[in-house]
Amino acid sequence: MIMTPATTATAEKRLVIVRHGESLWNRENRFTGWTDVKLTERGRIEAIEAARLLKQHGYRFDFACTSLLVRAVHSLWLLLDELGQSWLPEEKSWRLNERHYGALEGLNKAVTAERYGHEQVMAWRRGYRAAPPPLLPDDPRHPGRDARYRRLAVASQPLSESLAATEQRVINYWREVIVPRLRRGEHVLLVSHSNVIRALVKHLDGLEEDALTALYIPTGVPIVYEFDDKIAPRQRYFLGDEQDIANRIAAVIRTGSKK
Amino acid sequence: MIMTPATTATAEKRLVIVRHGESLWNRENRFTGWTDVKLTERGRIEAIEAARLLKQHGYRFDFACTSLLVRAVHSLWLLLDELGQSWLPEEKSWRLNERHYGALEGLNKAVTAERYGHEQVMAWRRGYRAAPPPLLPDDPRHPGRDARYRRLAVASQPLSESLAATEQRVINYWREVIVPRLRRGEHVLLVSHSNVIRALVKHLDGLEEDALTALYIPTGVPIVYEFDDKIAPRQRYFLGDEQDIANRIAAVIRTGSKK
Repeated sequence: MIMTPATTATAEKRLVIVRHGESLWNRENRFTGWTDVKLTERGRIEAIEAARLLKQHGYRFDFACTSLLVRAVHSLWLLLDELGQSWLPEEKSWRLNERHYGALEGLNKAVTAERYGHEQVMAWRRGYRAAPPPLLPDDPRHPGRDARYRRLAVASQPLSESLAATEQRVINYWREVIVPRLRRGEHVLLVSHSNVIRALVKHLDGLEEDALTALYIPTGVPIVYEFDDKIAPRQRYFLGDEQDIANRIAAVIRTGSKK
Repeated sequence: MIMTPATTATAEKRLVIVRHGESLWNRENRFTGWTDVKLTERGRIEAIEAARLLKQHGYRFDFACTSLLVRAVHSLWLLLDELGQSWLPEEKSWRLNERHYGALEGLNKAVTAERYGHEQVMAWRRGYRAAPPPLLPDDPRHPGRDARYRRLAVASQPLSESLAATEQRVINYWREVIVPRLRRGEHVLLVSHSNVIRALVKHLDGLEEDALTALYIPTGVPIVYEFDDKIAPRQRYFLGDEQDIANRIAAVIRTGSKK
């Protein structure tokens, strides 16, 4: 992954991806998935800091998209406010929701590792094909019980997802919504979740499945993609100070052990 | 205007209108129009209080719309957050922008009354056909210089607007966007500006032009419209405490005299 300051903030075809800042359950080291958990004060500051970096480098956007989850939506709102672009069109889609963590949602990651074994939990968290134990149909957390998913076909309401399943819906969104806008020369801002971003980076960079284990997405650091006319990635880089980015990645690697 | 608590929060076809809370220039008693001025802390609280009233009466929404101006967008965001509906689809449209106040934007209302005479200023502020002096084409405030209006045809970029001109674009939005959603049984939340709401109420209630002089829209008070199957208004009422609403209307009537 190349780390370089933006040299061409006015380039034609650009996607900037920001992972939402710290949520209450990030702080408590719990599996979150589709559970709707708010940002912490630190998470709010992370979003504002990401916006300041973008502003400092002259980034402007034409379209913004995010998930239906409050930690991502609020991160987007904080970014737009700080960028002076609160007027930007926003689209919220379930396809940009975090991977559904099934019956693990709400559990502490370290406690889960004690119960199921470290290897099993790492397969669920970092692997590609493993899906966590699913919700039961009568679980109160079932997406069908939430008004925001009312228009979503029952077959599309996940009870648990592997990263492969998440990737499929993320790629659909990428192809149907983002690519046409990039073709028109729009600059797109996407605010989403760790596993959505891992899935999208895998797809865009053509990574192998086993490369995913070592792909960590720091919070609050803008990831910039520049594309050629065929919407093939020409360049990808983190925006910001190299040491700060390294520290943030190290913090992501450490999660999992805290109770 | 009927003032009654919501008895049928689950009725089929409903539009709730909220005027944005106090902005910095409301407080300084300056003409604002399309100038992009932020909310004051009091304005933020007004939005949250409006949301609490709606929540208390069980209101839920399917779609939200607002203008491209930050005081309205942020009011909407505060409302959605407090309602627990940050995931709601939002549409921002220039058609819901405040009336364009032309060359008056930025001027204190009392000082303007001294300069142009009280009657002239009241004709601009409360009348239907009078348009304030227009911006000159090379004015730095010209909408054509603002990225958010880039896709707006030059002929649609106002340099000043009468309330009649504002009404026309507001009705277009009502017909093209809101009516089809009401027909599908959606509950719509509209957060906008004093003159946009006056124009829409005039249209929906079939008011005469001279009734507009006495039509005041309080900030932060939800206005509820219920419609029959032909989308003709069956009922309109303010939500909230009658005395509080009367006080808020009195505060709107007093504006204009403060320097």
